[in-house]
Amino acid sequence: MLVYGRKIAIELLKSQQNIKKVILQENFSDKEINSLLEKSKFKIEIKSKREMDYLCSANHQGIIVDIADYKYKHMTDITNQDSFIVILDHLEDPHNLGAIIRTSEAAGVDAIIIPKDRQVQVNSTVMKTSAGALTNMEVISVSNIVNAMDKLKKMGFWIVGTALEESIDYRDIDYQGKIALVIGNEGKGISNIVRKSCDFVAKIPMYGEINSLNASVASGIMIYEVVRNRK
Amino acid sequence: MLVYGRKIAIELLKSQQNIKKVILQENFSDKEINSLLEKSKFKIEIKSKREMDYLCSANHQGIIVDIADYKYKHMTDITNQDSFIVILDHLEDPHNLGAIIRTSEAAGVDAIIIPKDRQVQVNSTVMKTSAGALTNMEVISVSNIVNAMDKLKKMGFWIVGTALEESIDYRDIDYQGKIALVIGNEGKGISNIVRKSCDFVAKIPMYGEINSLNASVASGIMIYEVVRNRK
Repeated sequence: MLVYGRKIAIELLKSQQNIKKVILQENFSDKEINSLLEKSKFKIEIKSKREMDYLCSANHQGIIVDIADYKYKHMTDITNQDSFIVILDHLEDPHNLGAIIRTSEAAGVDAIIIPKDRQVQVNSTVMKTSAGALTNMEVISVSNIVNAMDKLKKMGFWIVGTALEESIDYRDIDYQGKIALVIGNEGKGISNIVRKSCDFVAKIPMYGEINSLNASVASGIMIYEVVRNRK
Repeated sequence: MLVYGRKIAIELLKSQQNIKKVILQENFSDKEINSLLEKSKFKIEIKSKREMDYLCSANHQGIIVDIADYKYKHMTDITNQDSFIVILDHLEDPHNLGAIIRTSEAAGVDAIIIPKDRQVQVNSTVMKTSAGALTNMEVISVSNIVNAMDKLKKMGFWIVGTALEESIDYRDIDYQGKIALVIGNEGKGISNIVRKSCDFVAKIPMYGEINSLNASVASGIMIYEVVRNRK
């Protein structure tokens, strides 16, 4: 997949992972990127601005990196050392997925579980929005998240869902031990069947009239609440 | 300005504020929107899909609402009852501004202060990302945020900045009383001159390798930390 822009290119070149080639606009110059490219042996292609724009309609800033598609992990990759997992219940927006990966990396989350279908997958927008955090985060793809939740329960995880109705204040839950946090779809929230498999359902209190939080913002607040309880 | 999409259209039609006209695609039908339009006297224009696409290159879902440009508030609109203000130090991304307005509305923030220059202003992307919260939130435009911070201090506000270096854990600050929270630019953070005017500088601890949070996610965590300390 093609990932564009200087900031994410720097993270990718530093991580040295899965880079197929680097495409530069003629006369491209950036001190840090030039130095990283000199130290590496990546295949480099030079193209005109027009050719670059054809490859990527967004603002590529003169650099596009072609990387291998993301290799998902599996439930069997979860080990007994893992103790904080985030589960996404059919998110739609790649910017939300990217931001959640970024927050999870910073907060020390061990893995993120996403369903195979009706869920945004790891694409170049996610890669870019994650600001490089994806190279340092395990994303596990599963056919069925309820089955995955059952497996986690058998491993000793407590499952905490998030919903506005019939839920308890997120600050009143004990997040010590092994925790899996479930974040719902942007519009519909968590599904009923997922909710039934949760040990607790948490809500973030709201005091306005519109009272809606962006999914990645709500995830950030919840993830750092778990961190607060544990570190 | 033109705002598109069903979800935000519903919020705008409900709020009844500043709507110049509603543009519908021929054969447009949506139960909730039709009912809201029947109850109102807004000017309605019917256009072909092609004309709609010409007006709005994004996915408009058959409805575009033409609303008056946002009317900023002024520092003189801050009253003695206001006790929680968010200041944005030159944010660039309209999605971040929209998400911060949304979080602020839900958390009961009294007003948001933004600088006039080198800062994303309230545009249709911000309006859309705020999911209707903008109609319920005061955004104050100022020429100089350091001057605004000085005025707030004279009104009894404590100013809390955010930065990774030379800062204290965000959980170790007392947010009771009048609080103004300063959120920095996506890349550069808060500027030195703004930092010098802060009473405290807070950091959100991070445990990964990339360790970067999206500006709207970091704002959400900070805003809800202030809420936790006060409610």
